[in-house]
Formats: sequence, structure tokens, C-alpha cells
Amino acid sequence: MNAGDNSFESSDTGRSGAPLQHAQSITFEGPIELDRGESLPEVTVAYETYGSLNEARDNAVWICHALSGDSHVAAHDDSDDPGWWDIAVGPGKAIDTDKYFVICPNILGGCRGTTGPNSIDPTTGDRYGQSFPTITINDMVDVHRRLLDHLGIDKLLAVTGGSLGGQQTLCWAARYPERVKGVVPMATSGRLSSQGMAFNVVGRNAIRRDPEFHDGQYYDYPNGPQVGLALARMIGHITYLSKESMHQKFSETRTQPRHLDAEFEGHFSVGSYLGFKGSEFVERFDANSYITLSMAMDLFDLGATVDDFIELFRDNPCRWLVISFTSDWLFPPKESQEIVESLVRTDRPVSYCDIATDCGHDAFLLSADIDTYGKMTESFLATLAGGTRDGAAGDPGAQRSNIFHPAHPHRLDYDVILDLVAPGASVLDLGCGNGDLLTELAQRGHDRILGVEIHQEDVIACVDKGLDVIQADLNDGLVTLCDKQFDCIVLSRALMEVHDVIGVIEGMLRVGRKCIISFPNFGFYKLRDMLYNEGRAPEAGVLHYKWYDTPNIRVLTIKDFEELCSELGAEIHQSLALDTERGTAVSEDVNRQADLAIYVISR
Amino acid sequence: MNAGDNSFESSDTGRSGAPLQHAQSITFEGPIELDRGESLPEVTVAYETYGSLNEARDNAVWICHALSGDSHVAAHDDSDDPGWWDIAVGPGKAIDTDKYFVICPNILGGCRGTTGPNSIDPTTGDRYGQSFPTITINDMVDVHRRLLDHLGIDKLLAVTGGSLGGQQTLCWAARYPERVKGVVPMATSGRLSSQGMAFNVVGRNAIRRDPEFHDGQYYDYPNGPQVGLALARMIGHITYLSKESMHQKFSETRTQPRHLDAEFEGHFSVGSYLGFKGSEFVERFDANSYITLSMAMDLFDLGATVDDFIELFRDNPCRWLVISFTSDWLFPPKESQEIVESLVRTDRPVSYCDIATDCGHDAFLLSADIDTYGKMTESFLATLAGGTRDGAAGDPGAQRSNIFHPAHPHRLDYDVILDLVAPGASVLDLGCGNGDLLTELAQRGHDRILGVEIHQEDVIACVDKGLDVIQADLNDGLVTLCDKQFDCIVLSRALMEVHDVIGVIEGMLRVGRKCIISFPNFGFYKLRDMLYNEGRAPEAGVLHYKWYDTPNIRVLTIKDFEELCSELGAEIHQSLALDTERGTAVSEDVNRQADLAIYVISR
Repeated sequence: MNAGDNSFESSDTGRSGAPLQHAQSITFEGPIELDRGESLPEVTVAYETYGSLNEARDNAVWICHALSGDSHVAAHDDSDDPGWWDIAVGPGKAIDTDKYFVICPNILGGCRGTTGPNSIDPTTGDRYGQSFPTITINDMVDVHRRLLDHLGIDKLLAVTGGSLGGQQTLCWAARYPERVKGVVPMATSGRLSSQGMAFNVVGRNAIRRDPEFHDGQYYDYPNGPQVGLALARMIGHITYLSKESMHQKFSETRTQPRHLDAEFEGHFSVGSYLGFKGSEFVERFDANSYITLSMAMDLFDLGATVDDFIELFRDNPCRWLVISFTSDWLFPPKESQEIVESLVRTDRPVSYCDIATDCGHDAFLLSADIDTYGKMTESFLATLAGGTRDGAAGDPGAQRSNIFHPAHPHRLDYDVILDLVAPGASVLDLGCGNGDLLTELAQRGHDRILGVEIHQEDVIACVDKGLDVIQADLNDGLVTLCDKQFDCIVLSRALMEVHDVIGVIEGMLRVGRKCIISFPNFGFYKLRDMLYNEGRAPEAGVLHYKWYDTPNIRVLTIKDFEELCSELGAEIHQSLALDTERGTAVSEDVNRQADLAIYVISR
Repeated sequence: MNAGDNSFESSDTGRSGAPLQHAQSITFEGPIELDRGESLPEVTVAYETYGSLNEARDNAVWICHALSGDSHVAAHDDSDDPGWWDIAVGPGKAIDTDKYFVICPNILGGCRGTTGPNSIDPTTGDRYGQSFPTITINDMVDVHRRLLDHLGIDKLLAVTGGSLGGQQTLCWAARYPERVKGVVPMATSGRLSSQGMAFNVVGRNAIRRDPEFHDGQYYDYPNGPQVGLALARMIGHITYLSKESMHQKFSETRTQPRHLDAEFEGHFSVGSYLGFKGSEFVERFDANSYITLSMAMDLFDLGATVDDFIELFRDNPCRWLVISFTSDWLFPPKESQEIVESLVRTDRPVSYCDIATDCGHDAFLLSADIDTYGKMTESFLATLAGGTRDGAAGDPGAQRSNIFHPAHPHRLDYDVILDLVAPGASVLDLGCGNGDLLTELAQRGHDRILGVEIHQEDVIACVDKGLDVIQADLNDGLVTLCDKQFDCIVLSRALMEVHDVIGVIEGMLRVGRKCIISFPNFGFYKLRDMLYNEGRAPEAGVLHYKWYDTPNIRVLTIKDFEELCSELGAEIHQSLALDTERGTAVSEDVNRQADLAIYVISR
């Protein structure tokens, strides 16, 4: 949060167009064929690297920058200029340059070393200007793939980036899946929303209709379309912040302009900020590049629907970590969720977290949330590098033949549930918490296991254990999963916390070949006594809540559950009843003697 | 919804700058002193009227237009040009010109007949241009108050308007409360958010930095700042729509431009739309007016906090209906809610509805939601005109001495609760439904009664009955109400539906001198039997739900409730127990014999 301070922290790390001293470059002779039928006679790519490529050449992490970024992702040493992602990249940081060989190239169409509209067209000797072809994200990634070849790297450990960098990340996964082990798209989507495109359209119009634009051949004039570019940048900046973060930055000092910039309106703190940001940007960015790159953002289109993404990613071999930010309204979480949905439906290994933040789209560049998105990225890279789930340590050979010698003394039912899962079965764990059950399953050698969890800290913990987990609310349903997609779905002690009981159970029956449901039995004699003899609401019993603060909003007995199964046409294959206090199985008069029930059902 | 159609429906009713044939005008000689210290030598106001002023001169409804509106709020007859709010204003419509005398004046600073920057400055003989003073919403309303005097109307029945028209409405209430009986501000706020201001800043910069702007004296040049004004309008348009409504309009035809407008970028359906809207607007609107009016929006500032609004409206005599729209992100509902909060805390008569819609800020101008905001406005005007609550018909003299002859046979407890409310007490009814209890209280002569309800249809029903009701979620708490603000707070059969039981009861104890809480008793013998003997979850009993679909997420007995009261330090003044099936009071063994309990508590 930057509330109340006077800093102008944001995605910009403007370095006044100074040469990028650490950048290397490589020129590829053409013609380089482009996505939309045009070509370029040659392409130069500027890039920076950090850390060392290991002998196996399998520790390379590729970072894709956003619209206004460049190859200088981080400072190379203490005396170096700051990089645009210093908070995430460096020795000991989330993307640890002591462990990984980090590569960050400037993108095609940019203006910081890689060929773009302000480059000289060798066929004419003049700068391209608006004769620079319309390029797409595909073209950016194709050119970077040439750099990857040049560097002699067969397969990247991971590709990551946010915003337009996230679009490139998705494109790497779609276009060169065999060249990438894992992908971490952040704050992005398969296609920009109409609203997002609208802002880009206005920005481009502002540049193109600036009289100093001269059809893009402004390079020989004293002024370029500085006003138009500044306006485009101002519009962009609004979309990078959230309503809340703008409130925090500007509301208190509303009528107090911070900088007097004669070039733009000086009213209001927010006005002076935008004027400053716009003016600053003009010093370091090329207007034709802005048009070129924002068009590429708008043209990026992996598909309109989840079905399109499914078609695209059906056999995708990458491992995925998708990150969105709750207050990002330029690339809203829903758009990330559609990609995640397609990956889950096609059984791709994917984790997803929607990070709770006020920072808006810029969150992925700011320090406020580095402990979440940075931590998850770090964990994910470690999992990729380790080759196995890091958290799956322990003794996978330790068999438990007796449910009364539980590994988790407080979760006796875990062991019962584990025994109910067929060896090697694919398992979906709904409300998986911090992944204890999934870790056990991983240790037992289950390949296809996935957790669903609503709490962010638990999602982070799962990713840290190398587990695949999707942040989602069970009440939002399983409608998006495929029929009989999982051999087994587990809903452990969560049924009584969901509002939409029928929806959740129906979803489980549809998606799971077998469903294991455990729940506290309110028919337990102590709870019956409590109501009958003491006249008090049956507390959640085994969980010891009070009636007014229990997360258990549904009260059910074993008999109720069986009746509902019958109503829903669900077949009960197995039922187990436990007295968890005594640590015993219950075989008679179960609805009175058991405090916890476990059912295996299907339809 | 306009999904899938090709129309460009929106707030615009562009009439190409044609003279407003039905407009009358009046000129006030000056100097007219302005809010920020400047003055105007004279001001002309253009206005249109509809319907007839009655003999008592108390049926006048004043309509405030938004930034791009004018005095032509509705067509005067079938041959007339369409008005900008034809869906709401006309014979038999929500603002019924058969009943009301409707007045709609063009605003100061506008360009459709009322004095603005494109008017001739009589002291120079030239158009004002940028020498037109910076005006505020106060100035607009002050000038209109002169028109009101001129029309010989002491007191308006109501003032209404949305967006900048809503700001004027709020200003009428704040500045001339004695001249207005009721106010209906829509889609507005006490001050524009930093994000909203940011968009205005960029729009003004686009106009001011257009080389054709000529410091605002562009009137004698062949072209004005058409590009800048069009860009400003494009930005504005994005903010008037919601992300969802833009998706519905443009996503399917994403890459198919609809109009080829050579003046602006022709890519994408959304691009062609914005280009069309921008170009169209330039034909009918003056750039200096745009700057003047958007500055007035930004400068409008009734206060930063609820406390500021409280100070302002503490003794406000108006009756209020505040309307926001869920998908309005330019004036988000939260900002309306702050005004509502201040009015509730100062015991002003206010109703509030946050209308569920995808249409964004423009919703108040569109037909999609006319059945909600129009219906509520119609009901509210009827209440104002009737002088009393319309719904309070019936026989207020009918006393009920026996609770077993209920007026509402299905809600026996209503009568018990009614008898527990002291005559004339102020009452807050939490979860008031469609207002049955409040209607009874109104009939009994209670002046200060207010309902809180989450369901939109119930809120609309309450307003239709002439009751004051606030749309809100009980779980969001009563933190905003004042200590001991109500003599009595009723929570009838809703306790078991709230998540935050402690929060709600604590809030009631703080805000109410006396709290009446009724709840189904899960200690009722039938429910005990159900669990104890049948081994089945106690269904909500008196309400006959199933465990899996009941809205009752909290299970409590009389004993539990009393224990909680003790824990919270709440004094129990009175308790009543009913067997609602038999229609009898229960006096012994109440926790077993009663299915419904009613408590009067306080702290």
C-alpha cells in the first residue's frame, strides 16, 4: 500500500531512455515471416541474463516483460540501475538467480533494443515508423524462441510474466509447449476484455490523431506525438491501479496537486500524478511502439470460451501456476479462471490462486503482495526443479493397516479415507486445507491429484508442498468439471459448511466415479442428549463449536444423509462410522454411537 | 440488455445541435455571484415543462440532467424529437406528466440554451470561451433556484436526476432543503472518486492539448478541438458502461467493426463504436462546456466522510429515495451508501435500493431497469404527493387485545411483537420483508420506523407501501448506526439466518434501547423427538425446511439464547413463548413446549 505517502511507486522504473548497459543482442537474418502474412528483413533481440546456466542446461527461467518493460528485469549488482522486477528477481529472491539462469529479452515491436518501429528498416535505410508490420504475441514469442535456440537451451524450466508478459507466457505454453516445463502467467487472460480493448483504442486514437504524429514518421521532426502518447499512458495508468488504491493514494490530498507540470492540467493530486506519469513516459518510450504493442495485446486471442482453451491445451505437457489479483479490473480474475477451468477439465497439472489485494493490475509488480505471488512462484520453481513434489517427503512405504494408529491423530478419518481410495486413482479433494490428505496420496504414488480450497494461506501451503490446488469456493459448484473426470472425489468434513448442499453433492456424483464424503453425525448420542435432555442446540460436537459461531451451517445425521442419497438416486457402496473420541469404529446403532460418518457413494 | 443487437443505445439521444423547439428561457440580470468568487453579468436559463402546475402549486417535479443532457427530457408529443428520459417521463409513466408538473432546465455552463462558455459575454461582445468562470454544482443549483422563484413555486414535490444530475439533486437537498419535499438522487455520490476524477482529468487534457483548442477561443476557427472532445467522450463512454455490458455488446463481434469512421481507428467492434460515439458527440456539444461541466463534477464535494454528510444533513427536512446500480463503477453503490448511512444516523426519512443490473452507470437512462428504478420513483412520488404513506391504509383503530386473533394468521408472532412495542416508539425492523410489520406500526401511528431488507423485490414493495427501507445485508452489521438510536429494534425470525450472530446481537444492543428478537426454538419437543428418537436433524420445524436447503443456518434453543444473553451482559426484560401450531402461549416448560420464542432484551 502506498496510502498517504508521496511516492509515485508503480510499474514504471523509467530510466530516461539511457542505453541498457547490460543488454546483449543477437540479430537474426530474415526474412522473418510474421503471423499476419507480412515479414521483417531481419530482427535484433536485446536481452539480459542473470545467474548461470547449469551443466544440464535445465535451470533457465524466461521472464516476459509487459508493455512498458524492457530486458532490465533486475539490477545486476549494487551499482546497477534498478530493474523493473527487482523485488522478485535476484540472489535469494523468489526467482533466485543463485539457482536459476534468468533470461529477459526485450519484445519485438518494443523500443529498448529489440527491433521495433523506431528501428532502421534495412531495405529503406529509414526508420520503420508506421510501416512496421502489425505484429502479434505469436510473433514476439517466435522471435524469442529463436533466441532460445541461439542460447542452446532445449527446454526452459519456466516462463513467467504478467499482463502482456502473461499473454506471452500463455503463448509460450500454447505454441512451444515442448520447450517449457512450467508456466506462471500472472494478471492476464486468453483475450483482452472489450473494456480493456476500449481503453487501448482510445490511447491509440490519442496518438494517431496527434498532429505531431505525421503518420508515424515523426522521427525527423522536433516533436513527436508527445501529447497523444502521454494521454495514452495516463489512460493506461488508471487501468493499472484499482479504485481502492487510487483512493488510498489521492483522496486525502485530493485538491493538492503534487507536481506542477505546465504541460498538463495541474488540478487535483490525481491530475498532477497522471500528468507526471504521462510526461515521464514520453521521455522513454516510442509512440509507434505503444501503438504496435497495444494492438498486439488487443489482437491476442486464444479463444472466446473455455471450450476454445480446452481445444488448445488438451494435450499440453506443461505444469501450470496461474495467478490473478482480486482487484485487477483490466485482467479480472474471472478471465484467469477460464484458463484454469480448461486445464482442470483436461487433467493438466495446474494450481491457481486469486491473490487478495487492493493493488489492482499493477499488483504483480509491486512489493505489497510479493509475499504471496513471489512465494508461490518460488515454491513452484522449486517443484519444477526438484522434479517431484517437494512436500511429498517422508516415508511413502509406511503402510497403515490399522485405522486406529493414525498418522494424524486429530484427523483419524484421513486414514480411513486413504484406505478407501483405490491405488493409483485420480483424486479431487474438495476443501483440501493445507494439503495433508493430498500429501499422503502423493506419497502413496497417486499421480493425478488435485485440491480445491478457498483460503489463500492454505492454497499457498499446498503449492509449497508441490501439490496442485485450485482456489475456489465449493458453493460455486463443480459444473465446470467433466462427467466422471475423477476416479474419486473426497469431501472431508466440509459438507456441513456448504450452503448449496444439493449442488455440491450432485456435482460430485456427476464428476466423480466414486465420492467419499465424511461429516460429523448430529445423531451422535451426546448431541441427541444435549438437545433432548439438556434442551441445548447440538454443538458441532467433534469440532466443539458454539451454535452461534460454528462454520457448520448444516446439521445432519447419518439417517438424513442416507435419505438424501436415496432421494438423489445415489448408490451407497460403503459406509463407515467412527467414534473419534474413543478412536473406535462403530458397527451397531451407528446413527447414535458414531460422531463421524464416512460414505462412499456414486451414481 | 442489448446483448447481441446492433443498436448503439446509450445515454445519447444526439439531436445534432438542432434548436430545442419547446424550450422557454428566462434571463436573470446580474451580476450573478458565483461560488468561487467570480461573477457573471447575466444568466439565461433554457427550460422545458410538461404537464400542468396544480392550483396548490405543489405537484412540481424538477429533473436535473447529466453532463451531456439538456432541457428536452421527454418528447412533448408524438411528433416531437425523442427526449433523453422518455422511458421515465410522460403521461402514465413513472414520472407521470398527467399528475405532475415536470420542469427540466439546461444547466449553467452547458451549451443547449443556458448560459455557458459558448454564450456571448455581454461585457465584451465575444463568446466567453475559457474566460467563462469555473463554476460549481452550487452555481448550477443557485441559478435554477432563480428559475424556481420565477415560476412562482415555493416548494417542489421532488427533485431527481442521475450522475451529474444526481449531484445537483444532492445539492438541492443540501442548499435549498426548504424548497424540496423529496429528493431522488440516482447513480451519484457526495464526491467523485479519485478514479472518476482521473478519467475527467485525461478527458480535459485531451481537449486542452488539442492544437485546435486555441486556449478555448476556437469559435472563430474552422475547426474546434474536435479530436480532443471526441477522445474525452470516448473515455467517458467506457465509464458509463460496465465491463459486463461491454462484453455483451462487443465480444461476439469483436473483430468486426460496425461503422467505418475514417477519423478514428477502425479496428474492432468496440473501436468503431467509440469512434462513432466520439464523432457524434462533437456535432452537438461544445468542448469548453465539457471542460466546465467535468470540472464542476470533480469540484463537487459534500465531504470526504460520513461524518461530513451527517453534519450537512443533520436537520434536513427532505424525504429521500437513494438509488444506486450494482454494476456502476463510476459512482459505485458504496458511495451512495455513505450518504444513506448519514441520513439513517440522523434519523432522516430515507429509502435506499442498490438495483441489480449489468448496465453500469448508464442504467438510470436505459430501459432495462426502468421497472425497478422507475417503479420506485413512481411509488415515492405518490407517497410524497399523498402526504401520508399510501400503504398505511386500513383500520388503524382496530386494537388487538388478544394475540390469538392475529391480523396475519401465518405470522402470529407479529401481533405479539406489536404489543411489545411501546406506543410511538421509534422502530428499526431488521429483515423487514415486504413491510407487513412496519405497515402495522405505521397504522398505529409510529412516526419513525425503518426497515432493513436484503431482497430487492421486498425493498420495492416497501417503498410502494410508502415505508422507509434500506437495502442491506444484516451480516454487514449495524456498526454505522448510533448508540441507542432506536427505541426498539425488531429481529423477527431472522437470527437463525445470519452468519454473524454475535455481531448482529451486539449491534442491536448498542443501537436499540430495547431489542425484540423472535426465533424458532429448536428445543421444541417435536424437534427434540426428531433427533432423539428418530435420529434425524431437527428441521426448522415451524418453517418446514429440510436440513440441506433451509435458510436457517443457526440452530438454537431458548436455553441457548438465554445463555448467550448472559454471556453478552444483555438483560432479559420479557420473554414470551408460543406454540404456533396450536396458537397458544406457553407458560411452562417453555424450552420443550414452545416452537417460537420472543425476547425483549437490552443493555
